[in-house]
Amino acid sequence: MIAERLADLGITLPPVFPPAGNYLGCVVVGDSVVVGGHGPIDGDRVIRGKVGSAISLDEARLAARMTALSILSTLQTELGSLDRIQRIVKVFGMVNVAPGFNQTPQVIDGCSDLLVEVFGEAGRHTRSAVGLAELPFDIAVEIELTAQLRP
Amino acid sequence: MIAERLADLGITLPPVFPPAGNYLGCVVVGDSVVVGGHGPIDGDRVIRGKVGSAISLDEARLAARMTALSILSTLQTELGSLDRIQRIVKVFGMVNVAPGFNQTPQVIDGCSDLLVEVFGEAGRHTRSAVGLAELPFDIAVEIELTAQLRP
Amino acid sequence: MIAERLADLGITLPPVFPPAGNYLGCVVVGDSVVVGGHGPIDGDRVIRGKVGSAISLDEARLAARMTALSILSTLQTELGSLDRIQRIVKVFGMVNVAPGFNQTPQVIDGCSDLLVEVFGEAGRHTRSAVGLAELPFDIAVEIELTAQLRP
Repeated sequence: MIAERLADLGITLPPVFPPAGNYLGCVVVGDSVVVGGHGPIDGDRVIRGKVGSAISLDEARLAARMTALSILSTLQTELGSLDRIQRIVKVFGMVNVAPGFNQTPQVIDGCSDLLVEVFGEAGRHTRSAVGLAELPFDIAVEIELTAQLRP
Repeated sequence: MIAERLADLGITLPPVFPPAGNYLGCVVVGDSVVVGGHGPIDGDRVIRGKVGSAISLDEARLAARMTALSILSTLQTELGSLDRIQRIVKVFGMVNVAPGFNQTPQVIDGCSDLLVEVFGEAGRHTRSAVGLAELPFDIAVEIELTAQLRP
Repeated sequence: MIAERLADLGITLPPVFPPAGNYLGCVVVGDSVVVGGHGPIDGDRVIRGKVGSAISLDEARLAARMTALSILSTLQTELGSLDRIQRIVKVFGMVNVAPGFNQTPQVIDGCSDLLVEVFGEAGRHTRSAVGLAELPFDIAVEIELTAQLRP
């Protein structure tokens, strides 16, 4: 069970982040769940700033891990249980880059590593990890995810 | 019926925008329709420029609304009727940002609000709203959308 | 057969590019295959640099074509045969732009044209073609793709 796995890893999920506009955190359609953009937000703690200047690579990788946990929190609330997830399919990782910073895969590995720690082989996914000019409210990282649900 | 709803809202859809390259405006696959990038284009009227400098937040929100209408025009032509849409699943909103402009959710709400006005609860969707370095032909906003079709 | 079509076109697929982090080149889910971000990489040859300054439009269009071939290489290895592809559904084309370069559709046509050359009508897809602030390792172009598989 994923809840036990999270406990074994010492992970407590953050509160669900309320969407910052007229939209939903995720949508279930058929046997898929589509999760819109989430950020590195845990209650009052928000990681903001340009990666490569205000934010270091290590801090950004932690921000990507925080973002993955925020996504899992949204999924747990929407699905009732993370055990309904059959596999993670796709991650789209967006990094709020300072000019010239292009180690974006190393940043988004903070999310991808967490998903594999939690879900094992079922957590392995395809991905892009790219540098955006600006992200909402200057968050350091924003990530979308798609997963397949058990029938 | 959505056509009546549009009439009640005083909305006339713009002409279908012909793709700007070797691609299609949308593709139906199974019970989904995937709509590629559309812009704020209504015949000869095109909203161009960087949001946060040449274009204000209010103008950009209108551009996002225009873009939603261009998407609906493509969908109506492809599907024959907007009544075939069961629900809007996902919006990916890209804003052509001037450096430092990060109120991208408020911009893309111009699209999200229109979808909810037109489709009601079925118009509610998940989303990202992010800042791009450049968009084709300097359009102010570009939006992709995925929707579920009735069986 | 697509293998014959590639031979007729004089195309040899590049080696499969190993993912640059903790992720997979593509994932098959139901009758879809989702391909994460690929770049203009053919063995030791990598096209890097900002399009509009270091890289010209023509070079960038070639980079987009190279990227399409790298995607086909990943798909052939994953699927066993490109004949399993029923149609290309969606391309998300990201161009590593110098400030002010917005002819991104002309760049990504290098990918779209190749897909139509190889798959004919089944290669026609919907698309976005946008300008990113930074791409991994400064590659000139990055492209994601979704395709439908034969039942």
